[in-house]
Amino acid sequence: MPITTDALIIGAGPVGIFQAFQLGLLEVKSHIIDALPYAGGQCIELYPDKPIYDIPGLPRCTGRLLVDNLLTQVAPFAPVFHFSQLVTGLHKQADGRFVVTTSSGTVFSTIAVFLAAGVGAFLPKRLALPGLDAFSRQVSYRVDNAAGFAGKRLVVVGGEVSALDWACQFAESGPNQAAQVTLLHRRDVLQAPPELLARVKALCERGVLTFKVGQITGLLASAGQLTAIEVTDVNGHIAPLAIDNLLVLQGLSPKLGPIADWGLALERKQVQVNTETFATSAAGLFAVGDINTYPGKKKLILSGFHECALAAFGAAAIIFPTKKIMLQYTTASPKLHKLLGVASD
Amino acid sequence: MPITTDALIIGAGPVGIFQAFQLGLLEVKSHIIDALPYAGGQCIELYPDKPIYDIPGLPRCTGRLLVDNLLTQVAPFAPVFHFSQLVTGLHKQADGRFVVTTSSGTVFSTIAVFLAAGVGAFLPKRLALPGLDAFSRQVSYRVDNAAGFAGKRLVVVGGEVSALDWACQFAESGPNQAAQVTLLHRRDVLQAPPELLARVKALCERGVLTFKVGQITGLLASAGQLTAIEVTDVNGHIAPLAIDNLLVLQGLSPKLGPIADWGLALERKQVQVNTETFATSAAGLFAVGDINTYPGKKKLILSGFHECALAAFGAAAIIFPTKKIMLQYTTASPKLHKLLGVASD
Repeated sequence: MPITTDALIIGAGPVGIFQAFQLGLLEVKSHIIDALPYAGGQCIELYPDKPIYDIPGLPRCTGRLLVDNLLTQVAPFAPVFHFSQLVTGLHKQADGRFVVTTSSGTVFSTIAVFLAAGVGAFLPKRLALPGLDAFSRQVSYRVDNAAGFAGKRLVVVGGEVSALDWACQFAESGPNQAAQVTLLHRRDVLQAPPELLARVKALCERGVLTFKVGQITGLLASAGQLTAIEVTDVNGHIAPLAIDNLLVLQGLSPKLGPIADWGLALERKQVQVNTETFATSAAGLFAVGDINTYPGKKKLILSGFHECALAAFGAAAIIFPTKKIMLQYTTASPKLHKLLGVASD
Repeated sequence: MPITTDALIIGAGPVGIFQAFQLGLLEVKSHIIDALPYAGGQCIELYPDKPIYDIPGLPRCTGRLLVDNLLTQVAPFAPVFHFSQLVTGLHKQADGRFVVTTSSGTVFSTIAVFLAAGVGAFLPKRLALPGLDAFSRQVSYRVDNAAGFAGKRLVVVGGEVSALDWACQFAESGPNQAAQVTLLHRRDVLQAPPELLARVKALCERGVLTFKVGQITGLLASAGQLTAIEVTDVNGHIAPLAIDNLLVLQGLSPKLGPIADWGLALERKQVQVNTETFATSAAGLFAVGDINTYPGKKKLILSGFHECALAAFGAAAIIFPTKKIMLQYTTASPKLHKLLGVASD
């Protein structure tokens, strides 16, 4: 059975979250999908701890604080989040409703869709190695089940915090300790805080973790199983390395994904919208934030916030076709105070 | 000599302040004019202590807190505020610059003008009484010089905090004590916190303050001086009251003022703008916030903020005609960090 809703938001970044807030003020409940396992989008992926100075009324806040504040703000409207999944299909039915499917098999039936997908879904950077797809059971791009690596010969590919941290965790004593852990990075420079670098160094000195500089250039298999990889070092020397599992943690990169194929009016991969309701060329489908374009467009979080407000009114007119939608103010409206769960004077 | 500037902002409400911030990010210095003696506009006049719930990233903040935060945010750009004055004239010169004059006699020469005047200038509600204008030296709509009322027979007109507070101050012992103080209000209901009401009551009981319910319906003069007013009570009884000074504190009401006469394209008293740069029909003149209109316009503070950002880019293109204006991000740009006076990584 599909999940039936009035509004589905694609993207749980700051703009997607605020879209749910603006819809909530108009009594529209929403579901939100994101490729990441948590809310925040670019703010959390790209600059969780960097200060932002141009959010009006917040002289200085980190990406993380902004997202936390927005989640607090939207809480009264309890949007339903669907994390770690990508939109795989979007189809408009004869009755005007959209059917949206995700990579997790979730199916939504919705009146309005809000694209708040920013620069696209943040997906793990994949290893470009011919034939690798055949061994998908042994190749992971994130750790869903740490126990699955216990006792295995593991190669962790990457040179930043996530790769180093997991390499250490699987090298250290504990229930999930691997039989052998190799950290493989294309350069001899690792990017992480000093404490984590010291942790890696100590484990290497104890001989429970091996750091190799090089790239995977070949695969060795037997009976349909990946048994070893060929590693080429900076001098061009090739050496095999026997493995059971490959954990690739090279960071995330945004992909616009299937949105590019939905037949929307696009301009340099941005979705064209009108500035009255931020509707796209497809009725019922709105685009807000960095993914849209219009004359004068600036990719600012604050512009996305404004776009959410007007898109909410645009969608409410479709969702409640017989109701006149009035702008009410949160300072004064007893109705909004009730929706927000706060006391009126 | 006129004050020469690149940008002049009319209105020091939240949107006017944030306009100065957005201009600052583009290295444009600004001057800001307001009719009130302080920054904040509607936020401070209408709901200083009421919570606002829909400023993105601020789940709950009062009008006062929002304005304080915005003033902190704009501080690195040090806009110059010109309070307690109204714009009285705006003329475009042959060289393209605007000459703007105010009620205080200040003259500005500026390249760009930003109307951020909300619902208009907040001006004291005036007494509608024929002939009153002839006695302007004895009639005040605010207290600029408290010592001027010392030893005088004073009538304070009004029934809210400002009127009650000043009536008490002039009735109490001190260097500015008046000879006689009457608080005159059209109804017998006074609106003020309990402590202030108790203060009024105590002063009335001591006989140093008189509270009268009624309206001024006539003026008595001698040798060009106002000597007494005629007060009509709720029963229609008329009684004279000898006075030296009249202090009218009936609150403020917004007036669009001369903006209505500037020949701009208007729609129901709102200024029409394009949504690319929020430029009006007059080149170099931008309108942001509640004073403007365009398809889809909602009178939301957050929309005003977005409009400021795009208007700043629109104006920068005029102010720096040969420079390509790039959007830079406050999270990452060393140039913006320098302008904001914060450290870069």
